Amino acid sequence: MKAEDPAREPGGGEVRLSRASAGRLSLYLRRLEGFRREGSKKISSGQLGEAVGVTDAQVRKDLAHLGSLGQPGIGYPTEGLIAAIRRALGIDRQWSVALVGVGNLARALLRYRGFQEQGFRIVALFDADPAKIGQRLEGLEVYAPARMAAVIAETGAELGLLTVPSESAQEVVDALVAARIKGVLNFAPTVLRVPAGVSLVSVDLAVQLEQLAFLVQLRGSD
Amino acid sequence: MKAEDPAREPGGGEVRLSRASAGRLSLYLRRLEGFRREGSKKISSGQLGEAVGVTDAQVRKDLAHLGSLGQPGIGYPTEGLIAAIRRALGIDRQWSVALVGVGNLARALLRYRGFQEQGFRIVALFDADPAKIGQRLEGLEVYAPARMAAVIAETGAELGLLTVPSESAQEVVDALVAARIKGVLNFAPTVLRVPAGVSLVSVDLAVQLEQLAFLVQLRGSD
Repeated sequence: MKAEDPAREPGGGEVRLSRASAGRLSLYLRRLEGFRREGSKKISSGQLGEAVGVTDAQVRKDLAHLGSLGQPGIGYPTEGLIAAIRRALGIDRQWSVALVGVGNLARALLRYRGFQEQGFRIVALFDADPAKIGQRLEGLEVYAPARMAAVIAETGAELGLLTVPSESAQEVVDALVAARIKGVLNFAPTVLRVPAGVSLVSVDLAVQLEQLAFLVQLRGSD
Repeated sequence: MKAEDPAREPGGGEVRLSRASAGRLSLYLRRLEGFRREGSKKISSGQLGEAVGVTDAQVRKDLAHLGSLGQPGIGYPTEGLIAAIRRALGIDRQWSVALVGVGNLARALLRYRGFQEQGFRIVALFDADPAKIGQRLEGLEVYAPARMAAVIAETGAELGLLTVPSESAQEVVDALVAARIKGVLNFAPTVLRVPAGVSLVSVDLAVQLEQLAFLVQLRGSD
């Protein structure tokens, strides 16, 4: 729910890539990867739009930001478009991620194949529970929060995954910020504050379920 | 990524409530519940906007759909606004939820306090793994997929939570649809199809992490 940020393409002129259009690029990318698995070398704006639920005009507008990849009547090259989107989103590289709060959700995220496929590698685990400190999960040791600054510096983690209870979430974010993390993906159902210069994206799972209930209710009232 | 749907308020005239504004209402609600816990009886559009990251003009516009609750110079009544938002979102009632795919993510969701607080109750569990069928989790038995139609009819589940691997997600959605589920919240990182009349919201956790990487990259290029 942040204001839309304009983006600049690293090697080129200014590009106005809003956060909403970045969201759509992520979804196009997912679809393109599916097409690649199926062996398709070309994809049309109509096919992408249908998969994501937007018009092909919207697709063409979103993809126009990435340079002149599409050819009328032929479509977009699957492989080239995947590379261009990954570059635009900043995921044409690996990101190292620190995870704080080793519960069931953390265990699920550690095994979540989608993260690795998109270049996100969890490199450090933290938990305040003495019973968990020193345990190993998926080859990673669980560290005490006191080790955060040192471990984050050593591992080069730039992003933090926050899977702690709401009550301790702000305190943990403050510790991550002090440890020079650049961005936090928060799963705690609470509103958090980060200083300017640190990015925050919150995933409130109840909000997603509320959106679903809202849509179902809409249909019911038809 | 569906098209915006206009909403109608059950007891009143037509209300143009877009899905984006429904998303903001969920976030206002979360903030209002925080204010209520702190004992605040009134809240201003500025306070709500600040918490959610939008202008107070946007807040007033969103809340205008709910009727004339706010008073200039005084603000909105916390309790009344909570009730009005819950009504608008269709969560002024309980929703029964069936969960399919009993892995780590499912275990996390079963204990996720936010769902119960917002009126979502998980009432049925399904898994295809013979080793899991018959197990009990948080007081609920895990059923075989073959029991889906019968158990969903018995329990009155209207929404489905999908926490299965991508490979089997479409098959499971089809089974849920055949069992007359009205909406599906999908956690599998894949694009799914549902027939008209069934709602689908997908939570792609890698997309959320990509959004974070995108924001961090933006700041880095400043």
